[in-house]
Amino acid sequence: MTDVYLALVHHPVYNKRRQVIAAALTTIDLHDIARLSATYGLKGFYVVTPLEDQIKVAQAMIDHWAEGWGREYNATRAEALSLVSLAYTIDEATERIRHNSGARPTLVATTAANGPGRTSFADMRCGLLREGPILLILGTAWGLTDETMAACDKILEPITGPTRYNHLSVRAAAGIILDRLLGIR
Amino acid sequence: MTDVYLALVHHPVYNKRRQVIAAALTTIDLHDIARLSATYGLKGFYVVTPLEDQIKVAQAMIDHWAEGWGREYNATRAEALSLVSLAYTIDEATERIRHNSGARPTLVATTAANGPGRTSFADMRCGLLREGPILLILGTAWGLTDETMAACDKILEPITGPTRYNHLSVRAAAGIILDRLLGIR
Repeated sequence: MTDVYLALVHHPVYNKRRQVIAAALTTIDLHDIARLSATYGLKGFYVVTPLEDQIKVAQAMIDHWAEGWGREYNATRAEALSLVSLAYTIDEATERIRHNSGARPTLVATTAANGPGRTSFADMRCGLLREGPILLILGTAWGLTDETMAACDKILEPITGPTRYNHLSVRAAAGIILDRLLGIR
Repeated sequence: MTDVYLALVHHPVYNKRRQVIAAALTTIDLHDIARLSATYGLKGFYVVTPLEDQIKVAQAMIDHWAEGWGREYNATRAEALSLVSLAYTIDEATERIRHNSGARPTLVATTAANGPGRTSFADMRCGLLREGPILLILGTAWGLTDETMAACDKILEPITGPTRYNHLSVRAAAGIILDRLLGIR
């Protein structure tokens, strides 16, 4: 199995009015996606934000659970959070993965929108058996910018249920994406 | 397709020390699971808690997004929350489903633990085509009590990834369970 990484991107992403923003970091996203990363055997989970104060908040939260009282109270939380790294940009995360895994990762954008050139979950799942490292990129707020999507190597098809409603939280979407690609059936 | 309902149970559930408690309601669970319920075409999402003040908090939150300013600001949130009902007990939710769907639902417990008599996701997915209404029951905190599990008609197998780590948030687990049972592939 190839090395799979996930990046949760807080900038650049769109807000409701399609302006490019840096979204606020949410500690529940970090806990939930770290637990998912541990469950599905990811090599690492990068939290991407350029905001120095947000990096400090995230690091303080991770340190609380990784050490001392927090670790003693809930060891499974520490285990999951050990997969989390903080990065200022997607490029920085990519470089660090290249260093860890020995090759530049394939950048895979995710989106709730249909469009041309989407890779199906089935094809992506098969590709994991033969390809080098991959970085799954999830946007917070109203999603990754067009420029970020265009700079990725692949775009994963959106999650579909039996309805037209397609507004999932990024936490729930991350779980479904990882299960479709890496779950045991 | 049969009518599928979900119940998020805050009592009776275990705490970390396996004592039976009423867990605090978390509005993020309601938003995330309501959005999942809308995506996967559920007939209803019951939030089960015996605590009167928690019912009031949940109802105030739902009313905020269902009406006036909240609805105008984010209509997809209102659409999802329209599926949420509050119930004091699992029995109450079961009775209301019997009234809505015309038959007593099959009660399906979920758990992170392996054990005897689990129904596989594949069998449950096939069963949805021929059975009457079902109620998927998810526990908050450290999960449903043994008595609750024993009172259910079926117990769904736990979610497995390629690791032994099995500590997911209930939000993430709900998404993966609904996608395995109802997702379009």
